[in-house]
Amino acid sequence: MTNASEVMPAGELGEKVHRSPRLAPSPSEATIREQGSKRGCLLSGIICTNILFLVSALVSSTVFNPKGVSSIHLQGFQSALILLTTAWIVYYMGYVANEDRAVLYKDAHAGPVWLRGGLVLFGGCSLIMDVFKIANYVGYMHCESPMMVVFPAVQALFILVQTYFLWFHAKDCVQLQRNVTRCGFMLCLSTNLVVWMTTVTEESLHQTVYPDERNKTEMHSVVASEADHSNGSCKCSHTACGIFKQAYYYLYPFNIEYSLFAATMMYVMWKNVGRLMDDHAHHQHTHRLHLKGILAGPVGGIIMLVTGIATFVYYDVKVSENSDEALMLHYMINTVVVSLMSLTTLAGCVIYWLDERNHVLEKNPSRSLDVGLLLGASLGSFLICYFTVVAVIASGKTETLNALNLACSLVTILQLILQNVFIIEGLNREPFKETHASPIFSNPHALHANQEVHQRQSTRRSTVVIITAGMHMPVALGLCWKRRVLKEICVFLLLCNILLWIMPAFGARPQFNNPLGFDFYSVTTWAAVVNIGLPFSIFYRMHAVASLFEVYLTS
Amino acid sequence: MTNASEVMPAGELGEKVHRSPRLAPSPSEATIREQGSKRGCLLSGIICTNILFLVSALVSSTVFNPKGVSSIHLQGFQSALILLTTAWIVYYMGYVANEDRAVLYKDAHAGPVWLRGGLVLFGGCSLIMDVFKIANYVGYMHCESPMMVVFPAVQALFILVQTYFLWFHAKDCVQLQRNVTRCGFMLCLSTNLVVWMTTVTEESLHQTVYPDERNKTEMHSVVASEADHSNGSCKCSHTACGIFKQAYYYLYPFNIEYSLFAATMMYVMWKNVGRLMDDHAHHQHTHRLHLKGILAGPVGGIIMLVTGIATFVYYDVKVSENSDEALMLHYMINTVVVSLMSLTTLAGCVIYWLDERNHVLEKNPSRSLDVGLLLGASLGSFLICYFTVVAVIASGKTETLNALNLACSLVTILQLILQNVFIIEGLNREPFKETHASPIFSNPHALHANQEVHQRQSTRRSTVVIITAGMHMPVALGLCWKRRVLKEICVFLLLCNILLWIMPAFGARPQFNNPLGFDFYSVTTWAAVVNIGLPFSIFYRMHAVASLFEVYLTS
Repeated sequence: MTNASEVMPAGELGEKVHRSPRLAPSPSEATIREQGSKRGCLLSGIICTNILFLVSALVSSTVFNPKGVSSIHLQGFQSALILLTTAWIVYYMGYVANEDRAVLYKDAHAGPVWLRGGLVLFGGCSLIMDVFKIANYVGYMHCESPMMVVFPAVQALFILVQTYFLWFHAKDCVQLQRNVTRCGFMLCLSTNLVVWMTTVTEESLHQTVYPDERNKTEMHSVVASEADHSNGSCKCSHTACGIFKQAYYYLYPFNIEYSLFAATMMYVMWKNVGRLMDDHAHHQHTHRLHLKGILAGPVGGIIMLVTGIATFVYYDVKVSENSDEALMLHYMINTVVVSLMSLTTLAGCVIYWLDERNHVLEKNPSRSLDVGLLLGASLGSFLICYFTVVAVIASGKTETLNALNLACSLVTILQLILQNVFIIEGLNREPFKETHASPIFSNPHALHANQEVHQRQSTRRSTVVIITAGMHMPVALGLCWKRRVLKEICVFLLLCNILLWIMPAFGARPQFNNPLGFDFYSVTTWAAVVNIGLPFSIFYRMHAVASLFEVYLTS
Repeated sequence: MTNASEVMPAGELGEKVHRSPRLAPSPSEATIREQGSKRGCLLSGIICTNILFLVSALVSSTVFNPKGVSSIHLQGFQSALILLTTAWIVYYMGYVANEDRAVLYKDAHAGPVWLRGGLVLFGGCSLIMDVFKIANYVGYMHCESPMMVVFPAVQALFILVQTYFLWFHAKDCVQLQRNVTRCGFMLCLSTNLVVWMTTVTEESLHQTVYPDERNKTEMHSVVASEADHSNGSCKCSHTACGIFKQAYYYLYPFNIEYSLFAATMMYVMWKNVGRLMDDHAHHQHTHRLHLKGILAGPVGGIIMLVTGIATFVYYDVKVSENSDEALMLHYMINTVVVSLMSLTTLAGCVIYWLDERNHVLEKNPSRSLDVGLLLGASLGSFLICYFTVVAVIASGKTETLNALNLACSLVTILQLILQNVFIIEGLNREPFKETHASPIFSNPHALHANQEVHQRQSTRRSTVVIITAGMHMPVALGLCWKRRVLKEICVFLLLCNILLWIMPAFGARPQFNNPLGFDFYSVTTWAAVVNIGLPFSIFYRMHAVASLFEVYLTS
């Protein structure tokens, strides 16, 4: 890569630049920069913490005391927050478009195309959800607060603006107005987490099935928003309300994932503010999706997926009739899937152990975040599994149903541990192919002066690339079976994780259908454990899919 | 500091050493080392996570279903865990004593003397608690499980061994058997967190005062262990039981702090496993505790402390009579203390802003941990404060009592933010005095070969020190008033934080005495919020005291 000091005469960029950030900063300057960045991080972190705690208090109030803080209040607060965030995003895009020097580097690791693709997909589904919500609440306009329509409209606008923003700017490393930008990104992060928190709460309330106090066999579902309407005499003015309401609840999981995807991308952008790249340390690897020669993994995975979805539909239909059979089938299919996953993951770990590929040593905020989120999100599953294990063993209820429940929980714990090890090992290995060592993207406006130097250098570089590629060939051939097996394992695990995502995301709650948890712990404790653990567990599966996809590409 | 390659001929240390860790490792060796350390960290982390989740499930069972998992089961499990940990500590000490090369470096930042002093103090109080517990449960031996006596005895043994271990080994950077040692330290960390978790739960149950369902004005306290005895007909065989039981509950806060202190020290040791020191980057600063010329801070702080403790005693006596006066007095004194603290902290932040002292740039696991714990523990207070703010505003109960409650919460939020900023700034600044630049300690056994080289070098070094000390003098004189004011502020804040630690640690629970929280959120939700937030809030105050002491020494 070209050296900055050759490239940019300090005067050329206008009078405002005291010192180009491309020039290696002197020690004292680095110190001042470091100090400023620490302060900026702390300040933006304080803003984020305060917003999140305020909202968690508000959400708790709407759940436990809807008369004190109604959902209208909460939606009003959220709308204001979302509008503020949208305004900031628009300001940021305008600022970056006008100031060439605002973004000098782009982090090649941040916002890969599959992540942005997922964002657009989930964003699209969230937009449909918002349209359905608007259509539903328009029917209640004559007797409900207009906020019920305003909020989804504001949210739809936010999703449009944010998705556009993240598609084009996810790789930015901002160099100017650093502290303001940090606070802005933290505002975006908070807003996404607030949307996540409220959506998860609404979804949990919708799915929580409390055993009735009077008649243990009869179950009733408590739905907050339905309760809102049934209280008053407000009736829908058009006939399609019921359909819209049923439809938009099925789209909630997508909105939840959208918020989390956006939040993680905002976090990476926040981490990248003011980041100066080591030009020589970064390579962008162009991975292409080849499925040639991979057979057993996809076939096995698809069989699992289809079988799993079939049993899930059966479970969903039968479980309302309180049939133990449906529960047993659900536990059984889960145990089988998770056991097979454990075995294949173990095989994958053994291959990594045999494999001599080097570990990636360079620092990379998006990878550290991926690993942190993976480990953090898996805690949700650990929580539920350990609580189930203790409940089954201590209650001594070891008939078939709960023996299956116990087996399923134990194997899940094992699978989580193995899968975490496998994914972390996979992410930390150097990719197999090392061709196309094209470095980080650079801002074309800031570099127009040195076309010649660059061209000369790139000619030299391509020679080097050919040589290294030639050196890697025999190694790649020798490792061929290992690569193939790793890819098979990745595809299989990926499809199984999709299955394990679909089941809870679309409403399977064996924890509530099996009375064990409610009986052993109290009703509120068990509801709290499941409603806190399950959203993380669902996110974990989704995140594991994304990480496995990356491992697939690099192996 | 002497260069390792001059010091140790590779053969001199025995045949087992392939390559001394003191020699700068070659790139590929560094990679292998890094890989191994990542795997070791992951493995030990998995062990810790699994122990903690299993125990949290067990603790929940003992609380919500004491028939399923009794406290005897839990104590049995804990005793086994504690014995295993004790055995490992003994093995470690024996191993390190026999292998000279096991510990080549000592981290000068880890386990400072005030932290180890605090550990011994809290450990002593915990030992007394265990003796009282044994004395109490001996009276129940004829009708209770012997585990009630075995557990405190095992815990006492553990405290003795662990305190001895941490006193002499807190600075170790272990170089041999790295993965085993990492797992061992994580085992110790888990055990301490398990003890913390169970003690906090017991303490919370002891302090939680639920409003009675039948008669709202009458309160009753639910104590798990008392409930245990009252269920059966088991009566104490000696007369002093009641006194012992009352006494040991007052010692719980010390045991809680002891576990947390030990856990943080174990974490730093875990982080330091396999750490190779940059010889030139580390200086050990010898700070001495001078109180000369500092007056306003200590006097103001002691006035606050005495007044606070006096009102706390009044509150403790009167609150059982359900008097609003006691609550109002409590809120008032809290608001005054916290407001004064906010003002002084603000002044401190302004001084830091005026001050040109450099920031410390070197990496330091114990400092990062300090900052992380400070920020993390403050979340507990944020949680309670924001929930209170929302409850007061949304319920519209703005009579004097709750207006004071609201004011107290709002000022506390402000104070937490300012204090966090102040402490982090303080910890990140270079100390004022830079004399005695004695480097990290080194293992005397491994260095006996180069007495001469060392002496020659140290003579050269002392000249340098004198020169730099001479250069620093005028700066130090010029900053004198800033230093004095900073020290005054630190002492004042330190004493106020002690007050804010004493009040909740010894049983002030205005959150439960004021019916607002229970009425606004449900009883279980509010109890959960307070019982989760308060232990962190108490730890935050304790930790802030320790951090302020460090800031005092360096400024």
